[in-house]
Amino acid sequence: MNYRMITYIMGQILKVVGLCMLLPVLVGVIYHEHHILLSFLIPFVITMAIAFAFTLKKPRDNTVYSMEGFVSVAASWIAMSAIGALPFVISREIPNYFDALFETVSGFTTTGATVLGNVEAMSRSCLFWRAFTHWLGGMGVLMFVLAIMSSNDSRTMHMMRAECAGPNVGRLVSKSSFSARILYSIYIALTLSETGLLMIGGMPLYDAVIHACSSAGTGGFSMWNDSIGHYNSPYIEMVIAVFIILFGVNFNLYYYLLIRKFSLAYKNEEVRTYFSIIILATGVITLTVMKQYGSVLEALRRSFFMVASTITSAGFSTTDTGQWPVFAQTLLLLLMFVGSCAGSTGGGMKVARIMIIVKTGIRELKYIVSPRAVATIKMDGKPVEKDVVRGATNYFILFMLLMAVSVLLISHDRFSIEENLSAVITCMNNIGFGVGRFSPSGNLGGLDSFSKVVLCFDMLLGRLEIYPLILLFARKKD
Amino acid sequence: MNYRMITYIMGQILKVVGLCMLLPVLVGVIYHEHHILLSFLIPFVITMAIAFAFTLKKPRDNTVYSMEGFVSVAASWIAMSAIGALPFVISREIPNYFDALFETVSGFTTTGATVLGNVEAMSRSCLFWRAFTHWLGGMGVLMFVLAIMSSNDSRTMHMMRAECAGPNVGRLVSKSSFSARILYSIYIALTLSETGLLMIGGMPLYDAVIHACSSAGTGGFSMWNDSIGHYNSPYIEMVIAVFIILFGVNFNLYYYLLIRKFSLAYKNEEVRTYFSIIILATGVITLTVMKQYGSVLEALRRSFFMVASTITSAGFSTTDTGQWPVFAQTLLLLLMFVGSCAGSTGGGMKVARIMIIVKTGIRELKYIVSPRAVATIKMDGKPVEKDVVRGATNYFILFMLLMAVSVLLISHDRFSIEENLSAVITCMNNIGFGVGRFSPSGNLGGLDSFSKVVLCFDMLLGRLEIYPLILLFARKKD
Repeated sequence: MNYRMITYIMGQILKVVGLCMLLPVLVGVIYHEHHILLSFLIPFVITMAIAFAFTLKKPRDNTVYSMEGFVSVAASWIAMSAIGALPFVISREIPNYFDALFETVSGFTTTGATVLGNVEAMSRSCLFWRAFTHWLGGMGVLMFVLAIMSSNDSRTMHMMRAECAGPNVGRLVSKSSFSARILYSIYIALTLSETGLLMIGGMPLYDAVIHACSSAGTGGFSMWNDSIGHYNSPYIEMVIAVFIILFGVNFNLYYYLLIRKFSLAYKNEEVRTYFSIIILATGVITLTVMKQYGSVLEALRRSFFMVASTITSAGFSTTDTGQWPVFAQTLLLLLMFVGSCAGSTGGGMKVARIMIIVKTGIRELKYIVSPRAVATIKMDGKPVEKDVVRGATNYFILFMLLMAVSVLLISHDRFSIEENLSAVITCMNNIGFGVGRFSPSGNLGGLDSFSKVVLCFDMLLGRLEIYPLILLFARKKD
Repeated sequence: MNYRMITYIMGQILKVVGLCMLLPVLVGVIYHEHHILLSFLIPFVITMAIAFAFTLKKPRDNTVYSMEGFVSVAASWIAMSAIGALPFVISREIPNYFDALFETVSGFTTTGATVLGNVEAMSRSCLFWRAFTHWLGGMGVLMFVLAIMSSNDSRTMHMMRAECAGPNVGRLVSKSSFSARILYSIYIALTLSETGLLMIGGMPLYDAVIHACSSAGTGGFSMWNDSIGHYNSPYIEMVIAVFIILFGVNFNLYYYLLIRKFSLAYKNEEVRTYFSIIILATGVITLTVMKQYGSVLEALRRSFFMVASTITSAGFSTTDTGQWPVFAQTLLLLLMFVGSCAGSTGGGMKVARIMIIVKTGIRELKYIVSPRAVATIKMDGKPVEKDVVRGATNYFILFMLLMAVSVLLISHDRFSIEENLSAVITCMNNIGFGVGRFSPSGNLGGLDSFSKVVLCFDMLLGRLEIYPLILLFARKKD
């Protein structure tokens, strides 16, 4: 393995994370939170020192195979979480390091689960940093590095694959650095549009930036204890719901729209399924909760928001779903596993993967009847490569096995089986909340440090899609 | 499809079921329950009439392909459940037909979940019939038909495969009727041994037969509301625990032992893993519950019984596991999915399948690192055929998808998400109880008829391993 190149990539990533820590410093200066500045400046200096040490010399041998890609991404995400937690600890806003680590991992992985009982007690700088980790983690830091590195090496594809979500990632254009730049440009444009639209709805600039960052990563951190419900504004709710759905779409689609390849965009079976599921689930849930609300419109609005928030894994909450019928709650629970599109900032197992898995199940039934009829699985009208099918089904298997192990690992703690199961589901799918009574009681702060570390791993497993993290620890010395 | 042959096979199976209904009549005569005799004689006459109508003419074309095998097994199991429920309804001991159907399906599939609040109010004839359905369903009625039919047709293998559990079923000898006869002889011998040993422990003959039938099928119906706990006898507990474990072993093993092929028996990786899991789980659970009991021996006894009862899917209960630490409860919940060996009377996904699934997961990780290294999956030192691996992983996928659909289908009912999930888990794995608080509150009698039918399907899906039932309903007209 090319260790020199791995540390070099890590260094590049840490540079980006370090520089990003200057943003909350800026926020602190603007809002006169001078006591908080050092909490960011100290980690900034540490991060930059490490980053420069790692990147002093560009390695002569810059070969990066998939193993190097996976390991450097996994190691970088762990390193940036460990460092990103420091401001919370130094500022004493989250004094316990494991709590701060959990909050940071929850941020970078865009999970949005919190250990904090009272979010509103935090400084504006820390709240900004918390929301910004969502934004950075959503599209991925390595992707950002690729966007600015403008390397000509086609092998950076391996790294892109390690951080990007979904069963199969294709480059948009031949150079991956250019692909990364296109993706980040779209990401920034969407985030800015949302910020603007939220401000039109009466949100102050600061609030709008926080919630735009948070929805861009489909994370779910808010600056209020009652989340989006705080604004009590159907307009704001709708803007956020629409944008998290947009951030849950495969970004390739926007590129196709940009270059006016509308037919390519329309052909995308995953995106059509994603929208169909959202419409269907919203319709069904509206019907079941209608009685509880004064009007159909109110029921529709709340259903739409919760469906959007769940399937995209944003995890913003406007309604206590514990009051909803169990049928609606069950539907939301299933949507958590489905998740959003591959190549988006959303979580879950990804619509494309679930589609392949369901199609594989149906094909198996056909196979049982007539083993000689070799049925191929199709997506977008084309046969799916064998490796992609195998990858998707085995991902599902690994996901379930790891879920079982995680539930067992945190079962020594204070929660019940169903709460543990729910905590693991919400962390591995990067959602951030439970459904109704089937959710961890209160926040996750009550867990011990070991359980928090397990859940941190679950969040990283979900965000990085299992392989990088496992390979980091399971790799043989060579 | 050869419909004539399908009805012919159904007729044969119904004959066996019909004749078996004379056994509870005998019990009724012995215990002077004369009022109950008609409740069995009427369904007996109906069943035999249908059976003879179906088997009047032996079809000239007796080709049976896998499709015919699956469909006839699925149709037979539904028919015998529908008919087997009649005695309960006619005798008014379970007046509601859907309740009686649930109880009968729970019996034949060896699930052991009950809709009855007070079992002890039942007549001895009905209690016997209830326990006997476990015995009959455990090894399979079709297997019984094969054992007596002594057909020379090698194609009966297709039928055997449809009813027999596990990822891959191999005949012991070249003629499947002879295989079936060997299996049933071992089954009967084990059941008689257990009956004898229970009587030595002080159980009356009737009780011993009931509990031997119930453990032979790894079902779990008892004749007491407090199940095995009623006898308050460590000896009886141990006899039952040991025998359900033995009934959970692949029956091929006993055949190998009989013909003194000890090395073949020892080589069986699945059986060794099965025993290892039991020993390991018992040890770990003993350690966690030790504090709650006076002595290590008491903790060991209770842990061993519950581990045996859970992994074999018997579902006898001697301990309120709700009082155990959540860790122990979680471990039991996971054992439910593992289940017992292929080719046994036990439920769950089967140890062999779980082994293949775990090995597939590990191979996927290896594949990610170096795609060119084709790693084969091995069992018993030999490479597993590709089809078997694909079958096992896709079975897992279908199992999980059907679980999700089932939980959604019964979610309109009165239970919470966790209770619904638990009810589906216990039914699909043919267990019969939940774990601790993670279990359907009380018995399942409170569910509506639709939910009961869904759970009946789940139990049949679990017992017949998905394919027969789905193919029965999904088949195209041809």
